[in-house]
Amino acid sequence: MLKKSIRVRATASVANVSCGFDCIGYAIAEPSDVITITTKNKPGIEIIISGPKTDSIPTKPEKNTAGKAVLSYLNSINQEQGCAIEIEKGIPPGSGIGSSAASAAAAVVGINELMGNPLTLDDLLVHGMAGEAVASGGFHADNIAPALFGGMILIRSYDPLDILNLPVPEDLFSTAVLPDFVVNTKDARRMLPKRVPLKSAVAQAGNLAGFTLGLQKADFDLLGRSMVDLFAEPVRAELIPAFHIVQKAAMDNGAIGCGISGSGPALFALSESEDASRKVGTAMVDAFKKNGLNSIAYSSPIHKKHPEILD
Amino acid sequence: MLKKSIRVRATASVANVSCGFDCIGYAIAEPSDVITITTKNKPGIEIIISGPKTDSIPTKPEKNTAGKAVLSYLNSINQEQGCAIEIEKGIPPGSGIGSSAASAAAAVVGINELMGNPLTLDDLLVHGMAGEAVASGGFHADNIAPALFGGMILIRSYDPLDILNLPVPEDLFSTAVLPDFVVNTKDARRMLPKRVPLKSAVAQAGNLAGFTLGLQKADFDLLGRSMVDLFAEPVRAELIPAFHIVQKAAMDNGAIGCGISGSGPALFALSESEDASRKVGTAMVDAFKKNGLNSIAYSSPIHKKHPEILD
Repeated sequence: MLKKSIRVRATASVANVSCGFDCIGYAIAEPSDVITITTKNKPGIEIIISGPKTDSIPTKPEKNTAGKAVLSYLNSINQEQGCAIEIEKGIPPGSGIGSSAASAAAAVVGINELMGNPLTLDDLLVHGMAGEAVASGGFHADNIAPALFGGMILIRSYDPLDILNLPVPEDLFSTAVLPDFVVNTKDARRMLPKRVPLKSAVAQAGNLAGFTLGLQKADFDLLGRSMVDLFAEPVRAELIPAFHIVQKAAMDNGAIGCGISGSGPALFALSESEDASRKVGTAMVDAFKKNGLNSIAYSSPIHKKHPEILD
Repeated sequence: MLKKSIRVRATASVANVSCGFDCIGYAIAEPSDVITITTKNKPGIEIIISGPKTDSIPTKPEKNTAGKAVLSYLNSINQEQGCAIEIEKGIPPGSGIGSSAASAAAAVVGINELMGNPLTLDDLLVHGMAGEAVASGGFHADNIAPALFGGMILIRSYDPLDILNLPVPEDLFSTAVLPDFVVNTKDARRMLPKRVPLKSAVAQAGNLAGFTLGLQKADFDLLGRSMVDLFAEPVRAELIPAFHIVQKAAMDNGAIGCGISGSGPALFALSESEDASRKVGTAMVDAFKKNGLNSIAYSSPIHKKHPEILD
């Protein structure tokens, strides 16, 4: 017999990863969103949201990432099942660490479980992407894919979609630092240049290949040399007060590399150990503080798990 | 006591490798150039060239790739040693398989040997690049690095220069097909767009990362999916009669991928075995033939050797 209600947790993620602009994302252990889906006897989707800073999140199913993801999913299996979706936001929206992707990932895993798992995790991706699109204004997979599959993900191609797992060195740790203000993903996307110099495009490709090779060889120095973003960081850095100061604080305290997480304002850094990632986090929070901004640091390994079914 | 004369063979190479435009090159076993350098008691460099289609190659040391490479080398170690350089061209100039790079690579290895090897192979690269620049009109390393180091090379960055060895699956074989006409490297470079759409740049980077991952996993299907060039092939294909027909012949006959070698007119293909690479070569030669062009195919593994000192 199928369950009537399910709770699923999905975690935050870091997209872009400097040289991996629009190509790479990885999951982190926290923060996370928890979604409870309860089937109803009547059609229609009802959404309840709790958590800090969630006033701006739409509760209309078509406008809500979790709601839209569930609608897309149900539509694909020709189901008109009604349900209530309760979203406990642990990831602040607009932070740049895949808040909407986590909700969408948890929602598709949850509804699929309630329906008896007719779709595979791979199949769920497009429905998660459909959900995330209502928040980000475009079809992207660099947060939703890591939120769904865990690990460090390369999106080689969107058409057709080609999602690949990258090898992750055991000692590689992430720090994500969330300063206390919001960047609108759509605005951050609008800032991007439509065209880039061929030379920059070649350099970015070389760096992404170097990053991929560095992961394989667990060559942290190569990873660091490769973590340069010529596309987004030069224009988006100005959206984040003290970006260069905080980035320098990370590097001065031993980070392998440091950049903007997603479209910001969160910053991420990679480090060679858990201790190093905590030290880097403290230095980044201090640097934000000196510039009048409160922030929170999350240290974790690259999170290699699927969304967790809680009960 | 130092030798007075030395013969060195360096082989051809395939640069760009589709998604690796200006980033990747690999060495092949043949054809090759042989350079004989003989020290003289008086200053000055004298150049003699033999081989088919070598009329266009300058014999003035400053204008000749081998001559300029030796000059750059000698200048770096403050030597005014005079020498005679005899160049036996086995690689037709302007073919797109690193003809000038092979001469430059053999020349720097040869002169370094004659001087008692004061420089390492890594140190020789810049002098080889200086030599190649007189033929190609710019500083590139995607032919000279594989010619010097062997194997499949990633040039992650030019400033500073960062040259990396990529893992090569044992079964990976190359076919290089040289049609009987010449493309001028400088012209082919002038055709390139100065700027590219951000979307294309992201796709190219994703493909190059996919190619790098495919090499590591020996995943030939992933290699094939990744071998797409959005930068050079779309504009350069028109320089090569029947390009798309010959490319299709390669793919129809089992190639993993097929594209323009360097700036052409040679085409290259990668295959899953020696037999497959020969079959692909035959199909490509036949396709050129049907379109009125003679061509020669060279099948080989990725060549993992340094320039060979003959005597």
